[in-house]
Amino acid sequence: MESRFSPIAFVHNGRTDTADAGWGAVESALEFSPEFADGLEGLEQWSHVMIVTHLHAEHPDDPRPGDWRRRPRGRTDMPLLGVFAQRGRMRPNPIGITTVPIVRVEPSRLVVRGLDAVDGTPVLDVKPWAPVYDRAEGARVPGWFEELMRGYF
Amino acid sequence: MESRFSPIAFVHNGRTDTADAGWGAVESALEFSPEFADGLEGLEQWSHVMIVTHLHAEHPDDPRPGDWRRRPRGRTDMPLLGVFAQRGRMRPNPIGITTVPIVRVEPSRLVVRGLDAVDGTPVLDVKPWAPVYDRAEGARVPGWFEELMRGYF
Repeated sequence: MESRFSPIAFVHNGRTDTADAGWGAVESALEFSPEFADGLEGLEQWSHVMIVTHLHAEHPDDPRPGDWRRRPRGRTDMPLLGVFAQRGRMRPNPIGITTVPIVRVEPSRLVVRGLDAVDGTPVLDVKPWAPVYDRAEGARVPGWFEELMRGYF
Repeated sequence: MESRFSPIAFVHNGRTDTADAGWGAVESALEFSPEFADGLEGLEQWSHVMIVTHLHAEHPDDPRPGDWRRRPRGRTDMPLLGVFAQRGRMRPNPIGITTVPIVRVEPSRLVVRGLDAVDGTPVLDVKPWAPVYDRAEGARVPGWFEELMRGYF
């Protein structure tokens, strides 16, 4: 059984550098296919959105079937962990999810700040961020992750 | 350009009732394909996960191409809104995302509480919930949504 999705939009931000740093200040315009434009109506009532992307670029250290573990970013000072215990793009289904504030909603266009996706990334879905679905009261985060993410956003 | 994903796991919870109520108490076991079992290593270091599902069931009031607006759950007391301004399953790419607490991690098996997915739902990804990616400081939520979600979880 296979799930097939087509992009609803593409990321435009001029950033081609995939470095794990400085994403917080990046402003991205998501340009929607005209056929989906009316799907944005009312989005301005919300403050934040989850952007669901297809992390489409191949990467040399993608894990291969048979071993779904990896040290985050290949760093030797990081623990060896399953791909579902980390956020990197190397996972069986390379789906990216990041919550960002809305800058503005325009016809066929959504501008957000702090999306960690390079120029041209296909967008599969946009969902308004709602506490009832997306909040994690008292979430526990491992120390290695705090260390890893320093300076990312 | 099409994105093709295959399930990594399936939801087992015995619930077939799709009603928009009472999901909070539902305990679900996500049964992973053996090939992805090692991907769960280390997940017990986290407290919450985002479950990414393929909302695979057809629904009679799915919007059709040409009009991506809808009243939430078809309720006449709800505003007419674009599908990207609401959380319902009627969207171009029926991807579901819900954040839930981990009950326990077992070999090839992840047990969570409060996942709003019926028995047999395909799971596309599991991500640990991390504030830096998933938090929305001071999020604004429209009044109609608060009303809509009463009793859902």
